[in-house]
Amino acid sequence: MIIVMKKGATEEELSVVCRTIEALGYKPHIIRGVERIVVGAVGHEDKTPLQVLEQTAGVEAVIPILKPWKLVSRELKPEKTIVDVDGVKIGGEEIIVIAGPCSVESEEQIMETAQAVKSAGAKILRGGVFKPRTSPYAFQGLEITGLKLLAKARKATGLKIVTEIMSPGEIDIICEYSDMIQIGARNCQNYSLLKRVGQTRLPILIKRGMATTVKEFLMSAEYIMSQGNYQVVLCERGIRTFEDSTRFTLDLNCIPVLNEMTHLPVIVDPSHGTGNWRYVTPMGRAAIAAGADGLMVEVHPNPREAFSDGPQSLKPETFLEFMNEVRKVAVAMGREL
Amino acid sequence: MIIVMKKGATEEELSVVCRTIEALGYKPHIIRGVERIVVGAVGHEDKTPLQVLEQTAGVEAVIPILKPWKLVSRELKPEKTIVDVDGVKIGGEEIIVIAGPCSVESEEQIMETAQAVKSAGAKILRGGVFKPRTSPYAFQGLEITGLKLLAKARKATGLKIVTEIMSPGEIDIICEYSDMIQIGARNCQNYSLLKRVGQTRLPILIKRGMATTVKEFLMSAEYIMSQGNYQVVLCERGIRTFEDSTRFTLDLNCIPVLNEMTHLPVIVDPSHGTGNWRYVTPMGRAAIAAGADGLMVEVHPNPREAFSDGPQSLKPETFLEFMNEVRKVAVAMGREL
Amino acid sequence: MIIVMKKGATEEELSVVCRTIEALGYKPHIIRGVERIVVGAVGHEDKTPLQVLEQTAGVEAVIPILKPWKLVSRELKPEKTIVDVDGVKIGGEEIIVIAGPCSVESEEQIMETAQAVKSAGAKILRGGVFKPRTSPYAFQGLEITGLKLLAKARKATGLKIVTEIMSPGEIDIICEYSDMIQIGARNCQNYSLLKRVGQTRLPILIKRGMATTVKEFLMSAEYIMSQGNYQVVLCERGIRTFEDSTRFTLDLNCIPVLNEMTHLPVIVDPSHGTGNWRYVTPMGRAAIAAGADGLMVEVHPNPREAFSDGPQSLKPETFLEFMNEVRKVAVAMGREL
Amino acid sequence: MIIVMKKGATEEELSVVCRTIEALGYKPHIIRGVERIVVGAVGHEDKTPLQVLEQTAGVEAVIPILKPWKLVSRELKPEKTIVDVDGVKIGGEEIIVIAGPCSVESEEQIMETAQAVKSAGAKILRGGVFKPRTSPYAFQGLEITGLKLLAKARKATGLKIVTEIMSPGEIDIICEYSDMIQIGARNCQNYSLLKRVGQTRLPILIKRGMATTVKEFLMSAEYIMSQGNYQVVLCERGIRTFEDSTRFTLDLNCIPVLNEMTHLPVIVDPSHGTGNWRYVTPMGRAAIAAGADGLMVEVHPNPREAFSDGPQSLKPETFLEFMNEVRKVAVAMGREL
Repeated sequence: MIIVMKKGATEEELSVVCRTIEALGYKPHIIRGVERIVVGAVGHEDKTPLQVLEQTAGVEAVIPILKPWKLVSRELKPEKTIVDVDGVKIGGEEIIVIAGPCSVESEEQIMETAQAVKSAGAKILRGGVFKPRTSPYAFQGLEITGLKLLAKARKATGLKIVTEIMSPGEIDIICEYSDMIQIGARNCQNYSLLKRVGQTRLPILIKRGMATTVKEFLMSAEYIMSQGNYQVVLCERGIRTFEDSTRFTLDLNCIPVLNEMTHLPVIVDPSHGTGNWRYVTPMGRAAIAAGADGLMVEVHPNPREAFSDGPQSLKPETFLEFMNEVRKVAVAMGREL
Repeated sequence: MIIVMKKGATEEELSVVCRTIEALGYKPHIIRGVERIVVGAVGHEDKTPLQVLEQTAGVEAVIPILKPWKLVSRELKPEKTIVDVDGVKIGGEEIIVIAGPCSVESEEQIMETAQAVKSAGAKILRGGVFKPRTSPYAFQGLEITGLKLLAKARKATGLKIVTEIMSPGEIDIICEYSDMIQIGARNCQNYSLLKRVGQTRLPILIKRGMATTVKEFLMSAEYIMSQGNYQVVLCERGIRTFEDSTRFTLDLNCIPVLNEMTHLPVIVDPSHGTGNWRYVTPMGRAAIAAGADGLMVEVHPNPREAFSDGPQSLKPETFLEFMNEVRKVAVAMGREL
Repeated sequence: MIIVMKKGATEEELSVVCRTIEALGYKPHIIRGVERIVVGAVGHEDKTPLQVLEQTAGVEAVIPILKPWKLVSRELKPEKTIVDVDGVKIGGEEIIVIAGPCSVESEEQIMETAQAVKSAGAKILRGGVFKPRTSPYAFQGLEITGLKLLAKARKATGLKIVTEIMSPGEIDIICEYSDMIQIGARNCQNYSLLKRVGQTRLPILIKRGMATTVKEFLMSAEYIMSQGNYQVVLCERGIRTFEDSTRFTLDLNCIPVLNEMTHLPVIVDPSHGTGNWRYVTPMGRAAIAAGADGLMVEVHPNPREAFSDGPQSLKPETFLEFMNEVRKVAVAMGREL
Repeated sequence: MIIVMKKGATEEELSVVCRTIEALGYKPHIIRGVERIVVGAVGHEDKTPLQVLEQTAGVEAVIPILKPWKLVSRELKPEKTIVDVDGVKIGGEEIIVIAGPCSVESEEQIMETAQAVKSAGAKILRGGVFKPRTSPYAFQGLEITGLKLLAKARKATGLKIVTEIMSPGEIDIICEYSDMIQIGARNCQNYSLLKRVGQTRLPILIKRGMATTVKEFLMSAEYIMSQGNYQVVLCERGIRTFEDSTRFTLDLNCIPVLNEMTHLPVIVDPSHGTGNWRYVTPMGRAAIAAGADGLMVEVHPNPREAFSDGPQSLKPETFLEFMNEVRKVAVAMGREL
């Protein structure tokens, strides 16, 4: 940590700061600048929070030097992690596409969608059965009936399955039916839930919260990994900004940033990230060009009748075009799809 | 709903739109403007989401007219709700101050704080025992030991108790010890948890998420109320913006907005909303002047030694000044403190 | 500046960094931490931008220590500045209210408004004659005719006058008629214009841009002062955030922050900061409770007929109530109005 | 416009609204819904702002239907505009890259950069001579000396030239030397300047402001076009959000949105949009994959010695790699580079 003293701080104030630093287990190191004195505190930064020095007389600011994450860091593990979803590998050369409806609604709907996305080249089927809806009066999901339908679709198509968990109590039933567990954007900092899924050994797909910084996002992944589950895939899905011509602002900057900071695979959800099916294909292409390892897309056989998120769902035939468009960029990037 | 047709939309496209509106159970009503045609869809708007019409040929936009909330609305219940926390009334003439440490750390700490805030005029004691910390390596709370310490402080001082719930599994133990349950900002849209606390009959204090709009905040309260628990207090605690000289941007605009839209009491947390103890008093005064019904403030006997959020905690003597300052504004507003 | 080396940076990389620091005129000072090496660069920080070191091998981050402003700083001038607008003093004990229409529209309109706000207690009359309208097809202002009407209103009422400048070419004519020059939010970082008004000796009212940080806002004031004009008043008028129930988010946190950092007076515009006349009074009260030195409010004799910003204008009779409400809080704060 | 009446609005209030609508030159059209009455106002919406009805008793909201722009719209001109910069065509099949230093610093610097970017495939040379620097104490540009150096570089390489205008007074000198005029992000809503450049016949490159919505950005282009200059190129360069791991958040969503709304070409500046040279190549690729017509990139022969924006500048050899990477994606998109 670097402690910046106020202009005109007294020697006595400096001395109190140094003694406090020592009392907290660090070694102080004084640099006398032209206008200001700064004190470096040498020691393991995760031990005690020196930020409290900000309330000490004569101190202007406390600046942390180390990053608070460990297990997610490229410094600890320079080579990329490949997450294995029952044989489907995310983080390798192949671009993995996860597709399916926002919610599982009926056997007909999920089977038709599964067949369509499978034949277009998707590898994993998504479908919500426990739904985080803004309104308590909106459709809340088929729950276990939905999980059984997903399993049926898996059997029929060979697609792997990912579904969202909403509450720790759902963990056993989801582990029984699903190949991968999704943590939704609204639960990105629900630490109880993160710890709980960290205790399983299923791969976890965690979506960035709409106001979660890249650094906090890494800390959320660190929560899961701190429990011993290292199979984590990060998913950018749009952040909240002032712009209102799209539902969210897809932050593709975060892809090269995350690729630099962490060894975990990064995928992008252009359906939620735009909120409009007409923008899904260009933003899917852009995500791959920025360096993403995969995409998550909403597909519904009849978006006009969807119980949720219809306006951002692709029809099966549009999804086929989407895959063809994205494939061209994937190939240009030296990757497969 | 109002459906806006594209400029140059054909009569056939218009006819498809009208037939779809009818099929979804609404009655279409055409207005032919100078440049564009708009169609009003008359019916109960909560029935079917007409937004899917945005994927229909010739449609430019679908604009909802009704608000999606009911139970929280001033239209349904014009008079202000007074939430009763075991005799302490939030939403009436009296300004209620909730104070205490971020985390319960020890018997000495919580007893000393409780005595101090009680004698300065606070009515409810806050203290976290299950902590939502960004880092998995940071202090995670004293759990049941902490709850027992809170109960001890209540017995000694007569203060009521509020503590945060993190997971549905904690509900029974919290109900046993606490007078009010807090939903933290990171769980503001954790709908499973909202439903669960909605099934209790304890008063709920729900904090606005850092990227939650006022409308979504009301929907979160609606989730709780939809389960039959009408004792809900809303708490503004700062939203996330580009400004970085404070930890969050306290959105005091939301106070008159909420006071207009809902009958529920609204309080403000200037400690989290600024992240800096030096700004807590001016922003506490401002919140009351904007029309808030109460304040929630962090107080710690020795902020430099706090396990969490030290930089934003007031010392007991500063809290006393805070109360005196806020009281002047409360009196100017014709209220008591 | 503090230069943070990457984990595992080599001694040779460290040596290159130190030589570069010396070449740029600073003295390097090495601190070897447990995990990382940091280098303090001692010297006058405004000389050469050390940020370029971020492109040097082995460097992780460059952290500035000093603030880039001087003349606006409380460190340079601890006592509050009182800006004198031809006898009306902003920054003293008295709360100063600036009121008037968004645009000067006609003699009748401006004279009626001036009389009304004068008798309610305002001290300065606002009124736009060069208008920054989002649409090129909207009313663009009465220009010199408007300035003459403002002067006429001043003569009739004794109110001082402030009007917005849009372009350096307008400077002479505005200086001839106005007592104070306003820099609008959209020109907050129009540095050519800031320098130009800095060369006059009229007091300047500068509004914060809708995406301007507090630190950038201070730099904009520094631009004006660097030209020799020290009569600057800062005005918070709302920043852009995701929240859409108000037109902007009024950032009242910035008041205690600015009061700590700068000696310049700070006022607040609750009309633009909310965009809705119903919220102007509570937010005006809140601004004063947070420590503002004044308020700027839109008043129009007939808001329904206003050429611009009608929905946020107060009628003369509502303005009178506004003044009474704000006065109560001013008195509670130990100030006059 | 659609006027939404409050629940429980009286027939008399409705009647006042209808009469006001008529008085303002529109024809009212009443739709009686299940819970609420809405009134459609038929007429040319640009005539009178009906928003003022929001202050009328019984009115809940006023919703505009038409978009306020005309000349920029795809509805008016469905085919894409190709902007001709003295023979270099932006908006056609070819991806156009604009490259060069943030500031023109010396003859050696600009000539070396021009040769390097020319041979790598750039078509237009950028270089600031009037600089919008946040600090009044930072380098402010070489002004006319810089313009002459740019002209010399044009002569030597055949590259076209673009430079930023800061103030209306610079227009003649810039028109004399430059092939294209840039409006910087901080002047995106400087309407005086927009009108002034709209009166020239040079192509205009306008950068989106850091808090400018897509709709406001289109209105800024409309300002230029309303003066008769139809040669306008839009440039996305990052918006301000809470995310701080990059300097700005590059909003690539806006590319498909703008391509749908307007016929004007759209380019992207990944240098300012990320603030970090390491992220320029992936985000340049992503912009092209999203559908951009070109890129604007900072290149400096020695970024460590740059007077401004060094950390985000590419070295000539890195720029060559950048061009090779972007070319692959351009070809995959069926375009040339």
